Amino acid sequence: MSFSFKANGLITLTSDFGLADPYVGVMKAAVLMRNPHAQLLDLTHAIPSFQMQIAGFWLARCWPYFPVGTVHLAVVDPGVGTPRSMVLLENSGQLFVAPDNGLLDAVAKDCPQAIWRQFDWQDLIHLHLPTPSQTFHGRDIFAPLVAEITAGRQSPATLGRVVERVFDAGDASNQGQIVCADHYGNLLTDIPEQRLSQFQQPALLFREQHIVLHNSYGFAPTGELLAVVNSWGTLEISVASGSAQQQLQAIPGEWVRVVEGSKG
Amino acid sequence: MSFSFKANGLITLTSDFGLADPYVGVMKAAVLMRNPHAQLLDLTHAIPSFQMQIAGFWLARCWPYFPVGTVHLAVVDPGVGTPRSMVLLENSGQLFVAPDNGLLDAVAKDCPQAIWRQFDWQDLIHLHLPTPSQTFHGRDIFAPLVAEITAGRQSPATLGRVVERVFDAGDASNQGQIVCADHYGNLLTDIPEQRLSQFQQPALLFREQHIVLHNSYGFAPTGELLAVVNSWGTLEISVASGSAQQQLQAIPGEWVRVVEGSKG
Amino acid sequence: MSFSFKANGLITLTSDFGLADPYVGVMKAAVLMRNPHAQLLDLTHAIPSFQMQIAGFWLARCWPYFPVGTVHLAVVDPGVGTPRSMVLLENSGQLFVAPDNGLLDAVAKDCPQAIWRQFDWQDLIHLHLPTPSQTFHGRDIFAPLVAEITAGRQSPATLGRVVERVFDAGDASNQGQIVCADHYGNLLTDIPEQRLSQFQQPALLFREQHIVLHNSYGFAPTGELLAVVNSWGTLEISVASGSAQQQLQAIPGEWVRVVEGSKG
Repeated sequence: MSFSFKANGLITLTSDFGLADPYVGVMKAAVLMRNPHAQLLDLTHAIPSFQMQIAGFWLARCWPYFPVGTVHLAVVDPGVGTPRSMVLLENSGQLFVAPDNGLLDAVAKDCPQAIWRQFDWQDLIHLHLPTPSQTFHGRDIFAPLVAEITAGRQSPATLGRVVERVFDAGDASNQGQIVCADHYGNLLTDIPEQRLSQFQQPALLFREQHIVLHNSYGFAPTGELLAVVNSWGTLEISVASGSAQQQLQAIPGEWVRVVEGSKG
Repeated sequence: MSFSFKANGLITLTSDFGLADPYVGVMKAAVLMRNPHAQLLDLTHAIPSFQMQIAGFWLARCWPYFPVGTVHLAVVDPGVGTPRSMVLLENSGQLFVAPDNGLLDAVAKDCPQAIWRQFDWQDLIHLHLPTPSQTFHGRDIFAPLVAEITAGRQSPATLGRVVERVFDAGDASNQGQIVCADHYGNLLTDIPEQRLSQFQQPALLFREQHIVLHNSYGFAPTGELLAVVNSWGTLEISVASGSAQQQLQAIPGEWVRVVEGSKG
Repeated sequence: MSFSFKANGLITLTSDFGLADPYVGVMKAAVLMRNPHAQLLDLTHAIPSFQMQIAGFWLARCWPYFPVGTVHLAVVDPGVGTPRSMVLLENSGQLFVAPDNGLLDAVAKDCPQAIWRQFDWQDLIHLHLPTPSQTFHGRDIFAPLVAEITAGRQSPATLGRVVERVFDAGDASNQGQIVCADHYGNLLTDIPEQRLSQFQQPALLFREQHIVLHNSYGFAPTGELLAVVNSWGTLEISVASGSAQQQLQAIPGEWVRVVEGSKG
């Protein structure tokens, strides 16, 4: 197992920084200071504060849409300033960099071939970074690091040490959970569409309510609850031209089940 | 009538996707996958969900500030996955691409010379796109299409079929409507400033209240309602260093009228 | 004292425009219209409406992270359309452009060597700008101006007239104020970390409550109030994995004091 990563100059950013303060802007400045040619793309900065598993859920869904050579930097980092490590992970020619706090687990679950490298501040001494603050390693450590990687001056293949991580392949049951509500109030679950194949007329069961599966939002009457296979290949509860979250006030972690629906 | 469009590489994005989820980011990835040199510029992603007429209002006001050769991609698409068509429109050397749901009507009203072309998924077969999802054509169809257009591999002049669309020139009355409230709480109307010329001392009438016209926000006392000709050439109700929307709780579609004010 | 500024093509944007409307997008269009090679970076557009001192606070903290040759355009402009002037300020090879309303005072306080130039619309006649609107000089004056500067066609050293501005060096007391709450609910103060040196066991006093100083957020128990030296070198009140603003409902301007804490 060795790294085949070759940077294309594109860096995506994912965080819980929000857009109210200049935290994202100054993290980009810290990249451009060392690599003025880097191309920066915001994935999202609205991850709920400190919820690294939601950052991981989105990264795992988005990376296949990016070209080989992309670096994904994700910073949801409640342990910043404590002695937590950092990790990088290579998969399919793309690179993921994050605090070592479980953020990248969702990416790794789908990528059993991924190579993990763990590193700490002292592994970066040769980069001559200024002493980092205790509270903003996105700006002071991660940004300069991905700048150096995309500029070709730091090989990810030699950073820190290789570590082994093993993940469950995931169960194949008909149950899953609400992961989050999106901007439209769609409730995303972690149930992959493959679970539908064993049913003749699949429907979703949520809080004792059967929800009919449609091909897309526009096929259900306005205001009605429906289920769809969303564009990420998982099942989702929606309301046609409305908000399922407003109707249901679902909480991340609530259970959802695929069941046999009644014949149409 | 023929297309004179020549891409300059700049693509603007307008949508109701919001910035909470990575939908905008992954749509950009789908552009960069096919045209790494495209330059992407967010116009706004905070169009209220499913309100394509507000997306059209803003596009019609913004496009004159962009250079010739710009492509404007606008996706407010409640009918995604149903058999709705897509359209592209060329005007003054700029290109507009959207679902065929009325979104571009406001742009076309000001551009009687515009050429419309309507197209469907089957008109794009030669682009060899992966099978699109049922729910996210911004990422799966529109983004690759504008990538191919800006990369010079897809001519807009040969896509789908020319369609004729006729629009009213609009009435010339003194009445208009509230279109939306902006970030400051300014209430934008669709009354063009030209309507003022027939009055000696024009004022706005809203809900039986006369509102005095000023040259700019700073000329009225703090906290006072005022009307201005805004930077888009339409009339607007504002509060000096405050929010008219907070004071008035106006609803899009409410009537506003230009009237003769009292002498100062 | 003379200008040594040489543009690197990077322009940062700071404003109270919000991201709900296309105001930021169209201001970028107005830059690209005159300099298609400009690189635009959003610092923040969520400055509370009309609060130029918060824009200044953030600019003063962020500029050291940018490379020499950067232009910082900041538009918080309640006086737009009235006869207020505009200013540019050069410091350490970076350029700051803003309305002359105090916005740049916080930047200048830290930079006694800065050179100020004040200018008005009539000083820009040679740029042949279209007649500006009364309400959006970000788009109609500031954007074209920074485009011309970064394109090398307008020297900042000859614009308008040099003006002298003198600022207090700031007191050295142990008191300071809450400046604002950030996205996480951290309460930022303007007390520099140097004030801690005269204490054996420094703590913060806020509303008769002693708050213990920690090295970083993760060292305090979840939910507990703590103080930290933040990544900008000032003192900050926080809650571990929570929001200090939610617990304290602090108001910008409230007093905070450094005091001797009890021995641990």
